[in-house]
Amino acid sequence: MGDIEFLRDFHDLALIGRTPQGGVTREAATTEDNMARGWFEEFARAHGWQVHVDGIGNMFALVPGATDAPYVLIGSHLDSQPRGGRYDGAYGVVAALHATARVQARLSETCVDTSVNLCVANWFNEEGARFPPYKMGSSVFAGQMDENEALRVRDSRGITVHDALEAGGYLGGDTRPVVAAYIEAHIEQGRVLENRGHVIGAVESSWCVEKLDIEILGEQSHTGSTAMADRRDALVGAAAAVLAVDGIPSEFVGQDVLASVVHADYEPDSPAVVVRRAFLKVDIRSPELGKLAAAREALQHRLAAIAAERSITINVRRSDHVASERFPEWGVRLTERVSERLGHLASRVQTIAGHDALPLNSVTPTILMFVPSENGLSHCETEYTSNADMVSGVDVLTELLWEVVNGDLPRKESRSGDAE
Amino acid sequence: MGDIEFLRDFHDLALIGRTPQGGVTREAATTEDNMARGWFEEFARAHGWQVHVDGIGNMFALVPGATDAPYVLIGSHLDSQPRGGRYDGAYGVVAALHATARVQARLSETCVDTSVNLCVANWFNEEGARFPPYKMGSSVFAGQMDENEALRVRDSRGITVHDALEAGGYLGGDTRPVVAAYIEAHIEQGRVLENRGHVIGAVESSWCVEKLDIEILGEQSHTGSTAMADRRDALVGAAAAVLAVDGIPSEFVGQDVLASVVHADYEPDSPAVVVRRAFLKVDIRSPELGKLAAAREALQHRLAAIAAERSITINVRRSDHVASERFPEWGVRLTERVSERLGHLASRVQTIAGHDALPLNSVTPTILMFVPSENGLSHCETEYTSNADMVSGVDVLTELLWEVVNGDLPRKESRSGDAE
Repeated sequence: MGDIEFLRDFHDLALIGRTPQGGVTREAATTEDNMARGWFEEFARAHGWQVHVDGIGNMFALVPGATDAPYVLIGSHLDSQPRGGRYDGAYGVVAALHATARVQARLSETCVDTSVNLCVANWFNEEGARFPPYKMGSSVFAGQMDENEALRVRDSRGITVHDALEAGGYLGGDTRPVVAAYIEAHIEQGRVLENRGHVIGAVESSWCVEKLDIEILGEQSHTGSTAMADRRDALVGAAAAVLAVDGIPSEFVGQDVLASVVHADYEPDSPAVVVRRAFLKVDIRSPELGKLAAAREALQHRLAAIAAERSITINVRRSDHVASERFPEWGVRLTERVSERLGHLASRVQTIAGHDALPLNSVTPTILMFVPSENGLSHCETEYTSNADMVSGVDVLTELLWEVVNGDLPRKESRSGDAE
Repeated sequence: MGDIEFLRDFHDLALIGRTPQGGVTREAATTEDNMARGWFEEFARAHGWQVHVDGIGNMFALVPGATDAPYVLIGSHLDSQPRGGRYDGAYGVVAALHATARVQARLSETCVDTSVNLCVANWFNEEGARFPPYKMGSSVFAGQMDENEALRVRDSRGITVHDALEAGGYLGGDTRPVVAAYIEAHIEQGRVLENRGHVIGAVESSWCVEKLDIEILGEQSHTGSTAMADRRDALVGAAAAVLAVDGIPSEFVGQDVLASVVHADYEPDSPAVVVRRAFLKVDIRSPELGKLAAAREALQHRLAAIAAERSITINVRRSDHVASERFPEWGVRLTERVSERLGHLASRVQTIAGHDALPLNSVTPTILMFVPSENGLSHCETEYTSNADMVSGVDVLTELLWEVVNGDLPRKESRSGDAE
């Protein structure tokens, strides 16, 4: 299982759901996602591994090993955004499959006995594009989301997660593996490694995230006759709110506040009606809790000014708040050490985006490592990581897995909040 | 058939599809629209009139009369916007039913012989809310829209006009009546009559309308990680475009330019993706062709500036252009004369909104008359016309119908483009 085999497998997989511009569309539990799952199963069976599927569609490729020993899980996700990139998630799964095959071969050559088993995970619906919210499979696994609630989520056509999984043959009933540690490789989806000229990112922590629901209430009237001065147009109010959200990060020095409108809707949608009500979902991120709060307050001031100026009502509700989370210092140091040994420049970085590693980090010692993303682009067809960087990442991931399988696990360090 | 009977019928009808705030939701070919059609049929049958339905769902209540004589049509529409008002369209139909009943009674009392027959029309789908475009039934009647094309139009759930009409039992096959003239009463949906303290509007002409399709092309990326400076967000571009449209009328003195975004959409709609493409439908109106062109040019300048500033592409395409149309001077004068005779103050006005009377005006001598709308509000639950104004309107409409039925028709005046 050399570099050529890895690259062949990675680019073969990218043919499933391939888009004209070289990206992939593989939304959760669609035909394309199911084809990718079939590819995963085939890889596992060809290596003599057993594939289990749990009640939320997570797939576990179990390497035969010691009875009753817990598993070191390694993986990511095969689903994608619509017209997303070929690297996001898929890189981590293919890298995990190859790293596991290499470690398995080395264990059998060296006749080393381990107290843990190996398992590659393909988490269900990390993207949340078809079925929100994202990180669905890993969150259910970690007990952060109720399985039945997740199964009842519907897509825009009214199909439930339950029915979509069942139709594809991936509504499983297997017991989940007992986990001893989790390792994930992912593309950075940012520019830090590229700017530093580094190949490996050892992820120390995640950014804080705040989600807001913004409701804009105007007054319905006739677009074909109501005088402009008599209008209280919720769509125009929403447009002003979208620009307000987009402008918030520029109020802060540095590039450490992101603010995005991630969903917009309005009613009624009729060709001759001034809109009565609009609705926005907003996502604000920052590494610092204080900056996040300041950004929200700045936005609320801007929205209040818009409401007053346009005689409309704007209601803001905080729908979610995710604090920054730290990965254990043990894994960050291990990633640095292994990278140095292999001659790859490594950096401590943060993750702005969410990953399956975050829910896993709440239940088991977890390592998240990055490889560079050209121009920081992601969730688009032009997402790109070079073959050389991918191959370096697989080498580091293999050594990380080897060390962990051979007993390099944290002792009693608490998993979040402290470090060093 | 006195005033009390008219008001009772009008407010009874408003119970069909009534909304909690006193408006109505009666979109074309829904259960509510079909109930209103049933109400119309019952009124007609109770008066001994025969109801015909044509191939696009227009209903014609034919008063028995001279064989082979053409019909003076009088009517409007019973469908509404979602959460629309109870007056828009429905007033014109109920007023037409009562005016016709009164004229029929007077003809039979006076034993006058006429060379024309009477017919009340309920035009299908004037609003175009469920099935765009609007004025569907009257446009097909006037030969401005192909009937088969109209029958193939689908609503947002994929149901065709054909299937919706058939399911309700209103896909007819009756021959359309030969038309000698058309008269329509409608609420003004503006403030001109109210501001002048007048009760009757004699509509001289319509405003020019221009419809634009605006496509905004950005670049898809990751809302959860892409730096603000690296984004080319089509949703933010669309928001700037919505504000640009809304700001155009203020560049012109007077209140004779209206500009509205009447539909907005974007893709992909995924919680972690910067939008690649947004799409807006824009409606610009003015009584003057020159101002309309100037408004479009001003908008195009603003959009070009937005595109340059945000490194996005904005494509503008003119999808429709409707020139101002004049109603025959004969009918305007007749409306003034009849109003004066009945002691009601009347004004010459223009219509900004479209009406079934516009397509009819292209095929037959047409009169459109208005009654006041409080605060100019329409397409909303707070739409309001007083009972007194409605009753005055029915009186004027009855006299208009009487005069036309008794031979007051234009001789050789051309129907549009010139006057006085």
